[in-house]
Amino acid sequence: MDELKRRILNDAIAAKEDIVQVDMFLNHNLDIPLLEDMGAALAKRFRGAGITKVLTAETSGIALACFTAQAMGTGAVYAKRFHTGYTDSKVYFSDIHSFSMDKTYTLSVSQKYIAPNDVILIVDDILASGQAVLGLLEIAAKAGAEVAGIGVAIEKATREGGKILRQMGFQVEALAVIQSVQNGKILLK
Amino acid sequence: MDELKRRILNDAIAAKEDIVQVDMFLNHNLDIPLLEDMGAALAKRFRGAGITKVLTAETSGIALACFTAQAMGTGAVYAKRFHTGYTDSKVYFSDIHSFSMDKTYTLSVSQKYIAPNDVILIVDDILASGQAVLGLLEIAAKAGAEVAGIGVAIEKATREGGKILRQMGFQVEALAVIQSVQNGKILLK
Repeated sequence: MDELKRRILNDAIAAKEDIVQVDMFLNHNLDIPLLEDMGAALAKRFRGAGITKVLTAETSGIALACFTAQAMGTGAVYAKRFHTGYTDSKVYFSDIHSFSMDKTYTLSVSQKYIAPNDVILIVDDILASGQAVLGLLEIAAKAGAEVAGIGVAIEKATREGGKILRQMGFQVEALAVIQSVQNGKILLK
Repeated sequence: MDELKRRILNDAIAAKEDIVQVDMFLNHNLDIPLLEDMGAALAKRFRGAGITKVLTAETSGIALACFTAQAMGTGAVYAKRFHTGYTDSKVYFSDIHSFSMDKTYTLSVSQKYIAPNDVILIVDDILASGQAVLGLLEIAAKAGAEVAGIGVAIEKATREGGKILRQMGFQVEALAVIQSVQNGKILLK
C-alpha cells in the first residue's frame, strides 16, 4: 500500500537491529484516515473469503482490526492480554512467548465470542516472529472456527513469522514488508 | 442513544453492586456498527467545538475513540498503560488509582503526540469514579492543550465521576446513563 510505505520511509524511526518505531501513526498516535485505508486494503485482499469475524490481540492490533471489520461489514474481537475489568471464566486461551519483551503472557477470548461456524481473519499491526498470530490461531482452533487468513499492516521479513505461517498454508497479506534495516535506513520490499 | 440503551437493557449482565458487564458489544467483542453509531453520536454532541484530537486510555476506550475520531475527521491518541513495544522516554504521565482493580498504574503519552494548540476530546467506554479521565485531564494539562469535553458510551450515575467532572466545569456527554442496579436489574436514566 503506497501511502503506508511512504509513511514508513518518511516517518518511521529505525533503531538497533530491526526495531522500527511506527507509533506516530499505527499504535499510539492513530492516523485515522490511514488506518481506514489500511482496513479497506486488507478487506479487499480477503474479499470473497466469507469472513464473519476479525480477531486481533490487545492492544496494538485493535485500531486496525476495527477499520478492517468496518470495511468488511463484520464484527471484531480482541484477545485479552491484560486483566482489567470483567474477565469471563470460560475462555479459549494461548500462552505466548514474546521475544521482544522476553516474557510469556496469556491471550484469552471468552468462549461466547468465537463460534465454530465463524470464518476468522486474524489482524495485527506488525508481524515479526509470529508468536501472537500463532496464539490467535490456537484460540481459533480451540473454538473450532476456520481461519481464512492473516492480514497485517507491516511484516518484518527480517523475522520468520510470515514464512512459518505461509509454510503452514495460510494466506498472509502484509500491506508493507520491511526487507531490512541497515544503519538506521529502512528498506522495503 | 436508543440503540445503545436497548443493548444495555437486553444484553448487559449485571453483577454484584453496580458492576455491569458490557463486553459483548463494547470492549472485548466489538459491535462495529454500534461503535460507529456511538462515535457519530459523540461527534454530533461536540460539533463546533473545534476538536483536533481524541484522547483515550489503553485499552477499552480505543475502539470508541477510533470511530469518534473518524466521525469528527481528527486523529486519536491512546495513553499507554502497559509497557509493550516501543516506549518513548519523553512522556506526559499521570498516576491513576483504579478502585475496581484496587491498584495504581501510570498512563503516559509521548510528548510528540499532544501539542499546546490541540483541542482535545477525552473519550472512554465507561465513566465510573472518573480516575482514568482525571488522569487524561492531567496529561492534557501538562501538554498545555485545551480539553473541549469528555464523551463516554456509558456513565454510571452510581459513582461520582460524572458529577466531579461537571463540577470542574467540563461538558460531559454520556450516550447512556446507568441510574442504578438492583437485584440484577439495570435501570437507565
